[in-house]
Amino acid sequence: MAGATRELTVDLGERSYPILIGTGLLASAGSLFAERGFPVKAPILLVTDASVEERYAPTVERSLREAGYTVSRAVVASGESSKSLAVFDDLITAALEAGLDRKSTVIALGGGVVGDLAGFVAASYMRGVRFVQMPTTILAHDSSVGGKVAVNHRLAKNIIGAFYQPEFVLYDMDTLQSLPIREVRAGLSEVIKHGLIWNESFVQWCDDNAAKMLALDPDTLGYALYEGCKVKAAVVSKDERENDLRAILNLGHTIGHALEAVAGYGQLLHGEAIAIGMVGSARLAARFGYDPKISAETERIFRKFGLPVRIPSGIDPDAVMKAMQHDKKFTEGNMVFVVPTSLGSVEIRSDVPAAWVREIVEQLREENGEA
Amino acid sequence: MAGATRELTVDLGERSYPILIGTGLLASAGSLFAERGFPVKAPILLVTDASVEERYAPTVERSLREAGYTVSRAVVASGESSKSLAVFDDLITAALEAGLDRKSTVIALGGGVVGDLAGFVAASYMRGVRFVQMPTTILAHDSSVGGKVAVNHRLAKNIIGAFYQPEFVLYDMDTLQSLPIREVRAGLSEVIKHGLIWNESFVQWCDDNAAKMLALDPDTLGYALYEGCKVKAAVVSKDERENDLRAILNLGHTIGHALEAVAGYGQLLHGEAIAIGMVGSARLAARFGYDPKISAETERIFRKFGLPVRIPSGIDPDAVMKAMQHDKKFTEGNMVFVVPTSLGSVEIRSDVPAAWVREIVEQLREENGEA
Ligand SMILES: NC(=O)c1ccc[n+]([C@@H]2O[C@H](COP(=O)([O-])OP(=O)(O)OC[C@H]3O[C@@H](n4cnc5c(N)ncnc54)[C@H](O)[C@@H]3O)[C@@H](O)[C@H]2O)c1
Ligand SMILES: NC(=O)c1ccc[n+]([C@@H]2O[C@H](COP(=O)([O-])OP(=O)(O)OC[C@H]3O[C@@H](n4cnc5c(N)ncnc54)[C@H](O)[C@@H]3O)[C@@H](O)[C@H]2O)c1
Ligand SMILES: [Zn+2]
Ligand SMILES: [Zn+2]
Repeated sequence: MAGATRELTVDLGERSYPILIGTGLLASAGSLFAERGFPVKAPILLVTDASVEERYAPTVERSLREAGYTVSRAVVASGESSKSLAVFDDLITAALEAGLDRKSTVIALGGGVVGDLAGFVAASYMRGVRFVQMPTTILAHDSSVGGKVAVNHRLAKNIIGAFYQPEFVLYDMDTLQSLPIREVRAGLSEVIKHGLIWNESFVQWCDDNAAKMLALDPDTLGYALYEGCKVKAAVVSKDERENDLRAILNLGHTIGHALEAVAGYGQLLHGEAIAIGMVGSARLAARFGYDPKISAETERIFRKFGLPVRIPSGIDPDAVMKAMQHDKKFTEGNMVFVVPTSLGSVEIRSDVPAAWVREIVEQLREENGEA
Repeated sequence: MAGATRELTVDLGERSYPILIGTGLLASAGSLFAERGFPVKAPILLVTDASVEERYAPTVERSLREAGYTVSRAVVASGESSKSLAVFDDLITAALEAGLDRKSTVIALGGGVVGDLAGFVAASYMRGVRFVQMPTTILAHDSSVGGKVAVNHRLAKNIIGAFYQPEFVLYDMDTLQSLPIREVRAGLSEVIKHGLIWNESFVQWCDDNAAKMLALDPDTLGYALYEGCKVKAAVVSKDERENDLRAILNLGHTIGHALEAVAGYGQLLHGEAIAIGMVGSARLAARFGYDPKISAETERIFRKFGLPVRIPSGIDPDAVMKAMQHDKKFTEGNMVFVVPTSLGSVEIRSDVPAAWVREIVEQLREENGEA
């Protein structure tokens, strides 16, 4: 598996950083650290999860050690439940025991869970140490870029966190080969989202290259991840702290988050939930008078990728509506939604009648049979 | 109790903020929030502790409500043990239950414990909401300025935190009237520290005005707090993230922190421990060949304020040395110390032989009788 390494920059002034996407990259971790002036004296903490650890941690550690670094490994359980204050506390203990100092680095080697969790450790340990992302899922092309890090609280997801940018993102696509196919699909859902909010021709390209993307063809996938990261980076560069523009990244997420919460975390994957959510947003677009083709095409493309476009039976529409009201995006009768205006651009609307949302949630129920 | 309100600015570019020091200020909280454009729609969380709550929270809340704000109160137990991840978690729950959104404000009404804890809540809740400090101890003239916020970990103090500046500091000296005298003295220890690192004539002034300061004479105290905050603000403006200069604020803290840890947190107050630590640093200065008067004068002034200048019997010097080695400031045989070069200036030395420190720790033991 060869091919050129693609590189792009997240442009944030002094805090700008590169994203490297390619194959065989984990083995070059040590030389990258050395080139970029990470001090050899400062111990490194590699945070990873139980599904990733054995396959990929040794390569990174060997490479770092060969370059003279000291590295300790902290392994958390796989899955969303590790994004908790309790596991965060364990990682602070691990950092202390590994002797991390203010010049140290925390590496996140894993999917979005490890990235968000280890990122919050990096942001908080000694009020902030260096941070490097090594994403190992497709979804993490999204989560590893942009600096949102967080853990969950019993009552709310991602409610405890920081904006904390990594110093670089090292995206070794070889790791994606071991991903379960359902995770592949769910990750591609966010790739397509990046097209839908920003880049019509990329949506077209995804539509044309669905089979190769799903087969993880390295060059096709490399391009897809590069384009996905490019949209994310462009948006984040313009609005790091989500004062306005960055909110467009939430396309499909209002309904999506509610579905995840109601289904019970882990039942619906995040990427699956937001695929359904994006179909919902496209239907809202139609209600606002935009071309109904947006909705039909959105649905067709997600089906092509094997992603769900209907709310699983057993999920109660009332519970979904209620979950959205807990979401920050709700205000008095009207709701705030990212709504597509074409297959490649969106607008943020704060005048979405809750009644329309309710109707669409009803329509999208699997048992309504219109699928 | 009248007198003018003193105002000064912490100069941090876009994140600059004012410190207001005076009497009767808590009752003007509401109008200050309104003037500064805090949105009335966004709920406020007032964090305070059990010793402060009844006396001062109602004044702040009444004032905010009269100005149209919604405010909820969260009360933590008094004392250092509240600076924990567990209490932090409780406050996140309180914030969620109070409906705080991204435009909301967290107010810290209390001493350094409440300030550090509530500050970390403000920094982390939804990745950061607005933050206001309302210090009620003398020590908090230090902790409320400069944006260091944190909680403790079982293995280390202040290890989990952020740099997060408040939008303003409202310092109502009326609250200081209910402080136990031991807390008054301990707080004045940091005021004097600010003189010792930066401003010789202010050290002189403290020496001359010790009695009035201890009596909490409003105008004398107002000036003392103003000068103390001014030094802190000047240092922080030049080096917000403690890359170099800010470290001078740690005068007396290497020994001080070790004493606190060994005595058991709460046995020695922070200000007491660093008074002893500053005496230790002054003795180091003598070892480096600086005028021995520095040491004699430092000791005389702290005695005048009723602060301890000897290590209480029962504290084991070995344990103190060991605790310092856990401290970030230790490297191979030599230690890093802030050392006075006169009564109003310091230097940072990384060539302090651990053996000298050991000797001085021995000398300073109460039972050595040389007191
Ligand atoms: N910070 C952000 O901007 C942002 C954006 C989107 C999502 N997220 C967060 O990301 C998380 C979801 O990310 P995710 O989908 O990557 O989840 P994940 O990290 O849980 O990974 C999914 C599953 O795949 C396993 N896995 C990871 N890499 C693997 C590999 N190479 N081979 C085999 N198995 C592997 C994991 O153990 C896990 O079981 C959520 O917590 C979400 O909130 C954050
Ligand atoms: N962030 C920083 O830069 C910084 C700097 C120095 C110290 N600190 C932190 O500050 C903390 C110490 O601060 P502190 O000395 O204010 O401790 P504190 O907050 O515990 O207050 C001391 C005691 O006085 C009580 N109290 C507070 N205000 C009172 C009032 N007006 N009347 C009566 N009782 C009152 C408290 O309940 C407590 O029992 C430590 O945790 C230390 O780490 C932080
Ligand atoms: Zn997402
Ligand atoms: Zn201090």
